[in-house]
Amino acid sequence: MEGLLALKWDNEREKLILLNQTKLPNQIEYIEYDTAEDVWGAIKNMIVRGAPAIGVTAAYGLYLGIKDASEDSYESFFKVLKRKSDYLNTSRPTAVNLSWALKVMQQKARESKSKSVLEIKKILREEAIRIHEEDIDICRKIGEHFMCLLKDNMTILTHCNAGQLATSKYGTATAPIYLAYEKGWHIKVYSDETRPRLQGSRLTALELYQAGIDVTTITDNMAAMVMSQGKIDAIIVGCDRIAANGDTANKIGTFNLSILAKYFEIPMYIAAPTPTIDMDTPTGKEIPIEERDSKEITCRFGVWTAPKGVKTYNPAFDVTPNENITAIVTERGIVYPPYEENLKKVFNK
Amino acid sequence: MEGLLALKWDNEREKLILLNQTKLPNQIEYIEYDTAEDVWGAIKNMIVRGAPAIGVTAAYGLYLGIKDASEDSYESFFKVLKRKSDYLNTSRPTAVNLSWALKVMQQKARESKSKSVLEIKKILREEAIRIHEEDIDICRKIGEHFMCLLKDNMTILTHCNAGQLATSKYGTATAPIYLAYEKGWHIKVYSDETRPRLQGSRLTALELYQAGIDVTTITDNMAAMVMSQGKIDAIIVGCDRIAANGDTANKIGTFNLSILAKYFEIPMYIAAPTPTIDMDTPTGKEIPIEERDSKEITCRFGVWTAPKGVKTYNPAFDVTPNENITAIVTERGIVYPPYEENLKKVFNK
Repeated sequence: MEGLLALKWDNEREKLILLNQTKLPNQIEYIEYDTAEDVWGAIKNMIVRGAPAIGVTAAYGLYLGIKDASEDSYESFFKVLKRKSDYLNTSRPTAVNLSWALKVMQQKARESKSKSVLEIKKILREEAIRIHEEDIDICRKIGEHFMCLLKDNMTILTHCNAGQLATSKYGTATAPIYLAYEKGWHIKVYSDETRPRLQGSRLTALELYQAGIDVTTITDNMAAMVMSQGKIDAIIVGCDRIAANGDTANKIGTFNLSILAKYFEIPMYIAAPTPTIDMDTPTGKEIPIEERDSKEITCRFGVWTAPKGVKTYNPAFDVTPNENITAIVTERGIVYPPYEENLKKVFNK
Repeated sequence: MEGLLALKWDNEREKLILLNQTKLPNQIEYIEYDTAEDVWGAIKNMIVRGAPAIGVTAAYGLYLGIKDASEDSYESFFKVLKRKSDYLNTSRPTAVNLSWALKVMQQKARESKSKSVLEIKKILREEAIRIHEEDIDICRKIGEHFMCLLKDNMTILTHCNAGQLATSKYGTATAPIYLAYEKGWHIKVYSDETRPRLQGSRLTALELYQAGIDVTTITDNMAAMVMSQGKIDAIIVGCDRIAANGDTANKIGTFNLSILAKYFEIPMYIAAPTPTIDMDTPTGKEIPIEERDSKEITCRFGVWTAPKGVKTYNPAFDVTPNENITAIVTERGIVYPPYEENLKKVFNK
């Protein structure tokens, strides 16, 4: 499958091609980039979004920033690399994958110190491609580990966008859906629209629909009705941070779903690349929850849908307690309860 | 309290004044009506909505339609009355309260057959006022019966609009909130926005805010988060139909809430005028669920928020099973489980 990719690298022409996600779902527009400055703007303005996709974009952006550097000594070349890297890092300073990818690129340059600048440039291009491929590989492996939990003709409910639009390919929560589709399985998907920012209907429904997968959009409050009709076999969502005890922060509404899943005895799975597991955060209580602007609720579409001045509460995430989670699926394998014990083992393998 | 009223009757000037609900929450506009034809248009175009409010509006509309009739014999006058009544009944043919109110008015005319046409006209005006007052009385009584379930400083979560904008005054689910406010209690309210039509943020948040009540708007998927923080003491919602066993059809999302209420051990109350209790429907399974247009989900605000052509599922209501309901509060008193037994008693009092 290919479907709708957040980013592509044209190796021959040395151009980064980004899907303009600000225009989704109304317009599919790809934009070509060949300077670090333009890539900086693309990250800043959310042309590309989703932590893994941002990391890969930054790696290519850094390569574009140094590929035509005229410096021919390692020291002067590294100064340029460092300057471009620091600059790209300011595009969205809170995204961990962004600074991680830039650090990996710098480290690669340091390791290649003894080579010529021309050779280092080639090595850095290969490193960006490797970061890109590694991201695809992590997602694909998450999908593969899911396979033994799913079977043909299943219907999956998902929430928000932990899809390929947030990664290089496959997504995290959507990886098993794409892999099942590749296998020829008939998988149906219900996609919660995910108020207030509607990533579920704008992005997840779009990418699945474009890939030819049978997807149905519902509003978030329809989940109980759909579950009560026996339509849902499993819930799969992504995550923003998993505490050491398995408590999982994800897009607001995930906690709701986990309670419904328990009531209807439907398995609730979290798709999680291991970097989102934070062993330094003991429980969900310690995960800070971002509160966002009230206009996301009251005036999302340029139209006021609530009285001006009314109070709102707009947490971007909620925390699903570990006892509501059937399994956490990582690129290294499936983790079952007790999470306190079994999450540790993931890192000791 | 007065707050935002859906309708007012100016007895001196013999004019019906309706709040134009199509412009809410962006504009508070009252429109005066003095012909049956204009009232017909107001119901048709949803200037006024909510079954109880429509019934009262139709009664006044019928009076406006006959008040200047030149016929002076009972027979010829009744023909005009019947014609105007049949006409008004076509404005929204499925609203039960509409035809009910028109029938009550006709019956009143028949009972007054021996009087002069001038006197009958006065009697019909009084009858419309009585229907109006009876609607207020039912809502107020629902609110009064709720008082022993609530106390000062409570926080209530509500869903959709079973508010005074849907009735003549007080609403059903909002009646206890307004009465508590009149008593000087500090009641806080969380109002689910209620996708897809957003009656919670457009109407409930508006009417409570206008009345000076402390209301916070949230998206539907935030309810579990808010409940987990211990912020909600009770859930109160209205209903569209209650089956003989207590299963309750109400706006989509109510079933979700009832499951969350159970999980967090929060009482779940239904505010129900007795005409919504349908003893001829044995259980919730027999209640037909209206499915509405997909554009309510995909293109609610003139902006596409999902890919064109994607499948949707858009049930307008769901059914909350009786075991998730703590009590049903009617104008005749509070009904507790077992509902199969206790709902019968309501009608035998």
